[in-house]
Amino acid sequence: MDNKLMLMIPGPTPVPEQVLLALAKHPIGHRTGDFSAIMAEVTQNLKWLHQTENDVLVLTASGTGAMEAGIINFLSPGDRVLVGCNGKFGDRWADLCAAFGLDVDKITAEWGKALDTEQFREKLTADTDKKIKAVIITHSETSTGVLNDLETINRHVKEHGEALMIVDAVTSLGAVNLPIDAWGIDVVASGSQKGYMIPPGLGFVSVSPKAWEAYKTAKLPRFYLDLGLYKKAAAKNSNPFTPPVNLVIALQAALRMMQAEGLESIFARHQRLMRATREAIKALSLPLFASDEAASPAITAVAPVSVESEQIRAVMRKRFDIALAGGQDHLKGKIFRIGHLGFVSDRDILSAIGSLEATLQELGYESLTPGAGIAAAARVFAQS
Amino acid sequence: MDNKLMLMIPGPTPVPEQVLLALAKHPIGHRTGDFSAIMAEVTQNLKWLHQTENDVLVLTASGTGAMEAGIINFLSPGDRVLVGCNGKFGDRWADLCAAFGLDVDKITAEWGKALDTEQFREKLTADTDKKIKAVIITHSETSTGVLNDLETINRHVKEHGEALMIVDAVTSLGAVNLPIDAWGIDVVASGSQKGYMIPPGLGFVSVSPKAWEAYKTAKLPRFYLDLGLYKKAAAKNSNPFTPPVNLVIALQAALRMMQAEGLESIFARHQRLMRATREAIKALSLPLFASDEAASPAITAVAPVSVESEQIRAVMRKRFDIALAGGQDHLKGKIFRIGHLGFVSDRDILSAIGSLEATLQELGYESLTPGAGIAAAARVFAQS
Repeated sequence: MDNKLMLMIPGPTPVPEQVLLALAKHPIGHRTGDFSAIMAEVTQNLKWLHQTENDVLVLTASGTGAMEAGIINFLSPGDRVLVGCNGKFGDRWADLCAAFGLDVDKITAEWGKALDTEQFREKLTADTDKKIKAVIITHSETSTGVLNDLETINRHVKEHGEALMIVDAVTSLGAVNLPIDAWGIDVVASGSQKGYMIPPGLGFVSVSPKAWEAYKTAKLPRFYLDLGLYKKAAAKNSNPFTPPVNLVIALQAALRMMQAEGLESIFARHQRLMRATREAIKALSLPLFASDEAASPAITAVAPVSVESEQIRAVMRKRFDIALAGGQDHLKGKIFRIGHLGFVSDRDILSAIGSLEATLQELGYESLTPGAGIAAAARVFAQS
Repeated sequence: MDNKLMLMIPGPTPVPEQVLLALAKHPIGHRTGDFSAIMAEVTQNLKWLHQTENDVLVLTASGTGAMEAGIINFLSPGDRVLVGCNGKFGDRWADLCAAFGLDVDKITAEWGKALDTEQFREKLTADTDKKIKAVIITHSETSTGVLNDLETINRHVKEHGEALMIVDAVTSLGAVNLPIDAWGIDVVASGSQKGYMIPPGLGFVSVSPKAWEAYKTAKLPRFYLDLGLYKKAAAKNSNPFTPPVNLVIALQAALRMMQAEGLESIFARHQRLMRATREAIKALSLPLFASDEAASPAITAVAPVSVESEQIRAVMRKRFDIALAGGQDHLKGKIFRIGHLGFVSDRDILSAIGSLEATLQELGYESLTPGAGIAAAARVFAQS
């Protein structure tokens, strides 16, 4: 059916009607008082969302642009960095750091498992001459549905004292509690098409005073992504380069909605969506790709064995107009991923699970107990 | 009056209703057949607009991000470059090149004058050991309303044989004839909020085979703006990083409108808008900042003497809901700029000139012959 598409991929995520309407407003000039007022409001609300007094800067870029800004502004060629790699986006961090001539020391874990925090502690403790300039991880690994233990890894970084903690929070920000100031996270990169509930096109970077100190001596060349220029402009509620005015106005609308819901409610909702999804998947006898302990509230990966992932995705898309994500790289065809972050309600999970059950029936999946998925999800909702 | 704003700044420019409605459609996944089909169409139409068979790559970035991509992919630290500087955006080219450690040789002209093509010829002819790796200019200098003579400068670059011709066409593409293949321009950067008739957020870079040769040995570090990644993805109608789906769908709508109008008609319209604006300004005894020979079809700068620029802008904005641009840097308060590129019609010029006349009456401007501006503009329209 046309125009009935329901996005349950980990980005772009569903966008509320009032945000789409804000997006469709005729642009205004970006060097005007009207736009400065919007920037002032948006910046204040971004700090609220990031739970920080640090600068939160807005870039015209994908999440990867924000990640790059988080590296090139604070490091110099040859700097040693510890990079956590347990999925596609951890690998992207490593590739990005290598492209800029950093000395990359990877801490790897199997895709689908969380990073081992002890390995970080050991490397950091052994680094007595403080060669490690940054520890870089992906908070919620979108490719596998794993949430890494940022709080513990960051504690080891704080004990080290010298290294910056740099985080890709692209699918965690606005879905998972990430108290930047309480934990003392130096650099956090994120993107608009995830928890923010707006379309792709904006990147965000929060920067701590310690990171700004590093900025002063960081030697990687930069211009478009020079965060010093953004900080200077932000002090005047402005931008160094033309911002995507319509997306910023959409962001204003989305942040107001998030404030109305409240941070605790947002995080509780994502926890609930995750638990309902996971309990339903278990009740349908489909193997979850990540363990309960390592599960991301943003996305659930499923690794079916007696039925093809790609067949499930195809029927879900064709019969029920639900877009699920497939696996990436070596997981292509082996898993499917259900995004449940951003503008997603309890009802959406029931729609998805109901459709998944119907899909499994259609595909003749043998282990199916009809209705078991919905029953399990409903139980989670009844209890929370 | 609310919601009556008329943008006559050089970007963001007015956006057609059908493009705004396309922008407001719910996003779709970027790794889908549906989106690949859109990318395929958009890429083909971009080549048509650029009058080229070269790659035209789409970035999530402002125009400055596209400019940066045009440098860091093709040059190495220490490379000598000739940069034309006769306005804010020429200066930006020089700053950008300096930030990346290039050896910048500036060819300057007074703001409001065109670059002297002879100076390029002399420097290029003198460079017998081919140290100059690129000649970099701004085609339409947005800050002053000057159109530089790209065709002649490029001819000298071709005679040199070694240097790449790199051009900021942010306010010329889609407004001024720029036959990339006929002239052999290597790298052309542009942005969406100008002639493209869509909001800001997309950057474009066209790349010649000669520039791709230079890419192979260029040593500046890059990742997010690595055009090789975009070329590889574009071959599969895809993107290396999440594209701003809604802006791409808006671009699809805008490019269809441009194709329906036709390139020659688009260029003729911009010529007509420029001539009508300039004749009207002359008839109002207001000094034009650029000469007729150096005038950009995208924007007209006016340098009033017996009446304040900023007062004119304030009354235009407040009484008639028309946004004009002010001067930048040392021209602040000295000029105002009328943008007439993109989705601008003959009627819009009459609205702007009529409102300007009314503004001048209100400000008690002594040299005013009431009605002379409209009469002059109407004469241009009658003759063309």
